[in-house]
Amino acid sequence: MGVDTPGPAPAADPVEDFAADVFSRRCTSREALEHVTGKWALLAVTALLESPHRFGELRRRVDGVSEKMLSQSLQTLERDGWVHREVRSTIPPHVEYRLTDAGRELAPRLLDLVRFVEGAMPAVHAARAARS
Amino acid sequence: MGVDTPGPAPAADPVEDFAADVFSRRCTSREALEHVTGKWALLAVTALLESPHRFGELRRRVDGVSEKMLSQSLQTLERDGWVHREVRSTIPPHVEYRLTDAGRELAPRLLDLVRFVEGAMPAVHAARAARS
Repeated sequence: MGVDTPGPAPAADPVEDFAADVFSRRCTSREALEHVTGKWALLAVTALLESPHRFGELRRRVDGVSEKMLSQSLQTLERDGWVHREVRSTIPPHVEYRLTDAGRELAPRLLDLVRFVEGAMPAVHAARAARS
Repeated sequence: MGVDTPGPAPAADPVEDFAADVFSRRCTSREALEHVTGKWALLAVTALLESPHRFGELRRRVDGVSEKMLSQSLQTLERDGWVHREVRSTIPPHVEYRLTDAGRELAPRLLDLVRFVEGAMPAVHAARAARS
């Protein structure tokens, strides 16, 4: 908002005026966090860090995902601005998914988490065994 | 396994013998990743990074969680070795939850993700608005 804007002050915007807080049930950041940490979304974003993928490629990479779930996850990621869906005018035309600039900031954080949990699996199994 | 262990070779253990890969639907790391990225588990682990919490404290901190969901999340986190449940012999006795050493390695990664998504909310809202 420019300083020379006339008229009444704009209505307070809870998103812009207050810091986001996922610990508050009413904060929209909690939903956005859920979108990127969802099982299939997390794997899709991490896969897209490697390279852009066509839908079928992504579906093979994210082993076990259904067409419906992958499609829904990609739509949500696209809506929140992490993933870009590009229709390429090749012959035949094809659709490619790639990370946006924001997605390229997000993805390494998810990859770090993935790598950490993968590396921690011996400890996770040991913890489970110690309790059974 | 010691080098002097006699007898037949131990059966191959897919967890120990191969690197974990969350992209494989059969890898146990995928489930472990889901456990720590679950909505309530992620918030509970992040809250426990601040300090140990009693159950009621944690429930108030993780705004909106039900007793049942928090209890289930904590049990799963305890089973996988991220959270320790300690019965303190105070009068009256009380139960405290705190991160294990492994949990203290995990939690900053989740906090980083939380802070990133909180900070990205203006961009997320802009992306949504651009599409509607």
